[in-house]
Amino acid sequence: MEIKPGKLLANIDSPADLKKLSKEQLHEVCDELRQYIVDVVSVHGGHFGASLGVVELTVALHYIFNTPYDQLVWDVGHQAYGHKILTGRRDNFKTNRKYKGISGFPKRAESEYDAFGVGHSSTSISAALGMAMASHYKGEVDRQHVAIIGDGAMTAGMAFEALNHAGIEKSNILIILNDNCMSIDPNVGALKEYLTDITTSHSYNKLRDDFWKALGKLPGERLSRKIVSKMEAALKGMVSKSSNLFEALNLRYFGPIDGHNITKLVDTLKDIKDIPGPKLLHIKTVKGKGYELAEKDQTKWHAPGLFDKITGEIYKKTFDLPQPPKYQDVFGYTIIELAKKNDKIMGVTPAMPSGSSLKYMMEQMPNRAFDVGICEQHAVTLSAGLATQGMKVFCNIYSSFMQRGYDQVVHDVAIQNLPVVFCLDRAGLVGEDGATHHGAYDIAYMRCIPNMIVSAPMNESELRDLMYTSQLEKIKNPFVIRYPRGEGVKAEWKTEMKEITIGTGRKLKEGDEIAILSYGHPGNFAAAAIREVKSEGINPAHYDMRFVKPLDEKMLHEVFKNYAKIITVEDGTVKGGFGSAILEFMAEHNYNASVKILGIPDTIIEHGTLKELYNEIGIDANHIAETIRDMAKIEVNKLIS
Amino acid sequence: MEIKPGKLLANIDSPADLKKLSKEQLHEVCDELRQYIVDVVSVHGGHFGASLGVVELTVALHYIFNTPYDQLVWDVGHQAYGHKILTGRRDNFKTNRKYKGISGFPKRAESEYDAFGVGHSSTSISAALGMAMASHYKGEVDRQHVAIIGDGAMTAGMAFEALNHAGIEKSNILIILNDNCMSIDPNVGALKEYLTDITTSHSYNKLRDDFWKALGKLPGERLSRKIVSKMEAALKGMVSKSSNLFEALNLRYFGPIDGHNITKLVDTLKDIKDIPGPKLLHIKTVKGKGYELAEKDQTKWHAPGLFDKITGEIYKKTFDLPQPPKYQDVFGYTIIELAKKNDKIMGVTPAMPSGSSLKYMMEQMPNRAFDVGICEQHAVTLSAGLATQGMKVFCNIYSSFMQRGYDQVVHDVAIQNLPVVFCLDRAGLVGEDGATHHGAYDIAYMRCIPNMIVSAPMNESELRDLMYTSQLEKIKNPFVIRYPRGEGVKAEWKTEMKEITIGTGRKLKEGDEIAILSYGHPGNFAAAAIREVKSEGINPAHYDMRFVKPLDEKMLHEVFKNYAKIITVEDGTVKGGFGSAILEFMAEHNYNASVKILGIPDTIIEHGTLKELYNEIGIDANHIAETIRDMAKIEVNKLIS
Repeated sequence: MEIKPGKLLANIDSPADLKKLSKEQLHEVCDELRQYIVDVVSVHGGHFGASLGVVELTVALHYIFNTPYDQLVWDVGHQAYGHKILTGRRDNFKTNRKYKGISGFPKRAESEYDAFGVGHSSTSISAALGMAMASHYKGEVDRQHVAIIGDGAMTAGMAFEALNHAGIEKSNILIILNDNCMSIDPNVGALKEYLTDITTSHSYNKLRDDFWKALGKLPGERLSRKIVSKMEAALKGMVSKSSNLFEALNLRYFGPIDGHNITKLVDTLKDIKDIPGPKLLHIKTVKGKGYELAEKDQTKWHAPGLFDKITGEIYKKTFDLPQPPKYQDVFGYTIIELAKKNDKIMGVTPAMPSGSSLKYMMEQMPNRAFDVGICEQHAVTLSAGLATQGMKVFCNIYSSFMQRGYDQVVHDVAIQNLPVVFCLDRAGLVGEDGATHHGAYDIAYMRCIPNMIVSAPMNESELRDLMYTSQLEKIKNPFVIRYPRGEGVKAEWKTEMKEITIGTGRKLKEGDEIAILSYGHPGNFAAAAIREVKSEGINPAHYDMRFVKPLDEKMLHEVFKNYAKIITVEDGTVKGGFGSAILEFMAEHNYNASVKILGIPDTIIEHGTLKELYNEIGIDANHIAETIRDMAKIEVNKLIS
Repeated sequence: MEIKPGKLLANIDSPADLKKLSKEQLHEVCDELRQYIVDVVSVHGGHFGASLGVVELTVALHYIFNTPYDQLVWDVGHQAYGHKILTGRRDNFKTNRKYKGISGFPKRAESEYDAFGVGHSSTSISAALGMAMASHYKGEVDRQHVAIIGDGAMTAGMAFEALNHAGIEKSNILIILNDNCMSIDPNVGALKEYLTDITTSHSYNKLRDDFWKALGKLPGERLSRKIVSKMEAALKGMVSKSSNLFEALNLRYFGPIDGHNITKLVDTLKDIKDIPGPKLLHIKTVKGKGYELAEKDQTKWHAPGLFDKITGEIYKKTFDLPQPPKYQDVFGYTIIELAKKNDKIMGVTPAMPSGSSLKYMMEQMPNRAFDVGICEQHAVTLSAGLATQGMKVFCNIYSSFMQRGYDQVVHDVAIQNLPVVFCLDRAGLVGEDGATHHGAYDIAYMRCIPNMIVSAPMNESELRDLMYTSQLEKIKNPFVIRYPRGEGVKAEWKTEMKEITIGTGRKLKEGDEIAILSYGHPGNFAAAAIREVKSEGINPAHYDMRFVKPLDEKMLHEVFKNYAKIITVEDGTVKGGFGSAILEFMAEHNYNASVKILGIPDTIIEHGTLKELYNEIGIDANHIAETIRDMAKIEVNKLIS
């Protein structure tokens, strides 16, 4: 069934069409845009609440600014659906987040209106400032650069770094602070309280007005000139630079204004557009605006999946048999189980309590589990600080976000050899979120660091066993456990937990000539491939290595002594990853074998379903089976040293 | 000649001894401590200005707080020499930064007084907050945690992340903001201006006082109750939360006070010590305080090397012949040369203008070269933003600091394939700065990222050629050039620049049986080793690979077809580094050779001279020669496929 846009929206193929409308018609455009997002997302899926919250802002920006010459940088990009629809991607919007379809985030390769690719939070001010500085240098005095950033993203240090720099540059940059008190989960931190403060009590501008009004009622003639001037100076000192966090950083501050009042937005943007230098407009919006259920439960409706737009029923998959749980929930329940027995356990997540399922522990043990906001760097070093006091911290960070805390892992955890447990959620490919969110690099960037233990479970039981092992008193090293987004493989996952000896793998089966060494969840694809080739008389051995660091050297000696053909399988980069670690072992011990490395190839992988992507990169069962067949054909001089 | 501490200092073996002294005697302790630092550093080297600037603070902290039960976290740690001397390392201080001696930074393994190891900036608040939260959880209500952080380090986003979190925690943390307007170079950014503002014009407290004094002079009877209450409310709103950047973040703010007034410091710390919750004390100090020359030229005297403490003459090495320049200076002069011809070139450094030598361009082309403060994350994404506008940015960041910008390299540069040039200075081992500063991991963490070009010059000419190549219009990819700290090898370095074809190495010499593949500067050690074994009749080939990504596949086919024994040499980690890349090529093309990987082993390397450290890890000429000899002895089944 084709989804039709409203009458006005149907004729907006680019912002030029929008600009032809009168200011009064913009209300209708907003209504139609909001409806179109509801219509498409309910049927095709995607992020939801964020784009509804900025419908008016999106329309106002494209109405007032001369895009794409003027450049908009959407922070994170969850909220840019309206922007995509208004900039030539209306009809294509149904392919959003689908394989070979448009990306769920702004992307330079997709449109000239997408000035900067995003996905991770808090990059927009830096990027827009770079653009603005280039324009300043080139003398493009009329060109505008706008960063649109949520208050949640403002807690990340990177945003502060950029504000601190913007304040001393003369470039024309407008930062729009979209204040809705939400990331995916509600925001935390002192900044949030501050923003609430200046919004709900008295705004800075209002205060100043109030004060002078109050003074105006004083009997003028009684105030000596000297006193008035003294008071003015004192007041000026107080209310100027130091009176507002942003003005303290030398930005001109405007607002807060209602971000759902399209007329006010259009007028304000028009007014401040040409004021030179760095400026910040603070707007208040409601995530999910216009869709009542989404306004009420903003976390649930951040990306609800498919739903009935009339009743608001979110469709759930139904199954006949018990299904395996998500790795996330296994983590979430298991940490509580462990923490009940070990009072040294704490949990830390940077703004992903729902996504990581740490929220269960936060509810049950609020003094031991913390959401620290979007700040991976701080989360890692905070965990290190806790570890110095004997705490066993499970610091849960998505693999691709851990890139933000990399220095802290090296500098604060590994060099000091502090026993922090890093649960790298969303390791490997993540599916529809695409290139920015794939956890592709962590095997390579973690295993090069001394002192680290780096592991990956093949199923839910192994995740539980690794978690159990990592929190034992005798473990004195940093400990990485990486696992993918989504379901595991065992319906009966709540197995008794047992210690796994560090650096030991599991021999799943013996075989002939070919050995498959797998790391983590893709071991299941390898197992399926082995079942597939069995009828063809091919019988590879299979080892679930579990640790890429330290490697199970005893097991590897057995492998290299008995098999001349080896296939490694992982959901990390083939450059520097698990396969390379096996090659290093082989070189060190002077073995010769033919080794085929399967994993994420050296190219940017875009979005799609996991099935489509595993197929694309060739680590699904079919492709592994194909590789096994190819391997079986090769004549290899079998050298056992 | 033994350096003797002053009378009081000679008897301070731990803070307990300091606490026995009267408050009046502390002046003398400060004088003696300052003198001892001058005496030792002038003869033994090390950081200088930072520790002189916090002599009074150091004495006051150990006098008032119950260390090591109370915990001090020194940010960066350049400034902790006084702390080390007062905490049992007075006599050992002469081994500072020497091989097997004490570290130039606080280090947990070295002393229980070193609560947290440091080196990189801006980690202290996160670490101290973690400690404080653990104490809070454990009910250690009397325990104090103090982070001492400079205003320069405050510009890094990580510090802001920690402040934002500290403001909502109930833990007892005291942040001492040591405001001296300096990092190694003068600080930049809006925050610096803000701090100057609240210090030099009116402090917040003073303003409030002034204002009420002014009001007090009004004829009281004329002010109606209503008006007074209105004014009070308005004033309260203005001067409370929103009136101070730190109070906006919910920290109790004290100061600014003179950080060289020991009495005032002791009294203030005593007063605020037991106030619960997060608090910040702002002190003003002078870097280099008490040593006139260091006060006057703070960058020069940050770490001056050896000097005559009486005359202030900084000793320079003298040579008979022209000496090779530092790689840093080659970078600094070459970027200007290139920028004069290519107006798209810009330079960006996060707070290392002197260290990187970008300062020359900043002086000559102030609108094209920028010090953006301590903020690697912002520096990378700002460069990406500039690149979207067609600029060719040389973003110069030390290898170990680039760890802070890792996500931005992946997310903002590589995924979008923007042609930013990353000059990774201080790649490989850095010598006396030790574990936190070695640029050990960049080969591994960069080469796993798609789209990257990753190169390393073997000498100054190659650095110039790579820089020249990287800025050509036709180069559309991100481009890493890594080079070490210090001198190159060519006295005549100012060679004409020529393009190097991407992904091509240089065959330096042919040989028999053994081939050495080197990457970057350590190629010189390999060349020396080859000269060393020549007289023994061993004749290895030598290839300077130049690029670890993309590899010179043509050259590698030649190598693997002609040599059965291969030695790879690099100054990066042996896990996942250059050697592993060679193994990946070998596996992919089914070659069999005996490969020995020389590089930084999988362990934390401490401090020492480069000579000592190269010897320790076995990549100096002697050790490479030894490896060549060992290789020559091995019988290898030579398999050429």
